[in-house]
Amino acid sequence: MRAQPGRSVTSKVLALLAVFTPASPALTLSELARRAGLPLSTVHRRVAELVEWGALERGDDGRYRIGLRLWEVGSLAPRGLALRELALPVMEDLYEVTHENVQLAVRQDLELVFIERIAGRYAVPVLTRVGGRFALHATGVGLVLLAHAPAEVQEQVLAAPLERYTDLTITDPRRLRGCLAEVRRVGYAVSDRQVTMDALSVAAPIRAPEGVLAAISLVVAHDRADPVALAPLVQAAGRVLSRALGASRRPPPARVPLPPDQRRQ
Amino acid sequence: MRAQPGRSVTSKVLALLAVFTPASPALTLSELARRAGLPLSTVHRRVAELVEWGALERGDDGRYRIGLRLWEVGSLAPRGLALRELALPVMEDLYEVTHENVQLAVRQDLELVFIERIAGRYAVPVLTRVGGRFALHATGVGLVLLAHAPAEVQEQVLAAPLERYTDLTITDPRRLRGCLAEVRRVGYAVSDRQVTMDALSVAAPIRAPEGVLAAISLVVAHDRADPVALAPLVQAAGRVLSRALGASRRPPPARVPLPPDQRRQ
Repeated sequence: MRAQPGRSVTSKVLALLAVFTPASPALTLSELARRAGLPLSTVHRRVAELVEWGALERGDDGRYRIGLRLWEVGSLAPRGLALRELALPVMEDLYEVTHENVQLAVRQDLELVFIERIAGRYAVPVLTRVGGRFALHATGVGLVLLAHAPAEVQEQVLAAPLERYTDLTITDPRRLRGCLAEVRRVGYAVSDRQVTMDALSVAAPIRAPEGVLAAISLVVAHDRADPVALAPLVQAAGRVLSRALGASRRPPPARVPLPPDQRRQ
Repeated sequence: MRAQPGRSVTSKVLALLAVFTPASPALTLSELARRAGLPLSTVHRRVAELVEWGALERGDDGRYRIGLRLWEVGSLAPRGLALRELALPVMEDLYEVTHENVQLAVRQDLELVFIERIAGRYAVPVLTRVGGRFALHATGVGLVLLAHAPAEVQEQVLAAPLERYTDLTITDPRRLRGCLAEVRRVGYAVSDRQVTMDALSVAAPIRAPEGVLAAISLVVAHDRADPVALAPLVQAAGRVLSRALGASRRPPPARVPLPPDQRRQ
């Protein structure tokens, strides 16, 4: 949560939006005020404006939820729906030939955000939620995104405590550094039971002209997984999308540009 | 565009977001100022805050785009991603058995918004963009949503000029009124070449306990379409989703609530 109340009006408005989370998508006015750290009277007025515009919607239960209009505006994010529209046919192909889970993610600050997911009905269950965040150091897509992140991002992640999800999660910074170097060298990442003990994921980078924009992965049941067989499939999908983004051509069309802090091979 | 500059700071911040559209997703600072009707210095300061929070992202080209963080917050809209997550497996089933275009839409004010779409590769081309808007009086999903909208919404749509997309678009308010009554009576809507001359769509309502929440449709090539055969398929999909939303049970779980103005059978 990056909401810091007590600054400009702009930041207070944004703070009112930032208090909504997947775990608490519906809030009363007083919950909104408390979470945003703002007086109830101020919140009352601002929320009325947000409702009028459609950024929030008020339900019969008196709770406020994120409004469809904010979803509409958010759909214009190049790294959100635009990337998803580009990637979906390739993800569907990957699903058709494997019937496994297919995931698409980008990095935002020190975490990853899942942009799209095709869940195989008979594949290993995954926790992924589209629009949801996860740590960078455990999943296949996370390892790819971290391996290609700017050095300062890598150092920040390596300096912070690395959460342990299973006994196989890499929580030693030195080992993780070696793992990232290997991901860059071989061109894909394998996360073997590093998130849950039943799943293995194989991920590959999607490159834009400015650097790695996203990562695509297959998540399969650990006991029937063959990373060596899966890697070329995932890498091929990554390359198709990289080519579509102009990564191998100059000058590139670059329809899904990276924000400046992510421009690095 | 509902941006009305010159009011409160909240509305000015929202105005800066509202100037981004599918047709102009990337804007310079001066374009932003001009479109929002705000002085450049004000815009400069506010945009800096929006970028810091992640609501906007600045590209190498100096243009601003909607940021991924706004997409993340928008993904919490119950009628956006939550509805889409619920509907996608049913839409995929509909696609599997028909290989035609499948669409999901909700009403926002006097228009519809496409929430999801599965585009058949060999099906008739459709213009739909996820997150995009369209008029209510021409498409199958639009006719369903309009037929079940509150009376005042219907009257507003019927009172305004009805855009003609093809020679078959219903632009006579009296005829449209009769069509809406028929949609309510039979439980589905057929739009036969009313948007483009090659396409026909069949749509059915998705009901929440408070009323019709969304509409689902198949869009097929006009010359191979059989609405009588398609209608039960689409209606069955609508009923599965209505049941999932608790429409036929009391008390209902109502996980995707309607905003108050839409609560009406």
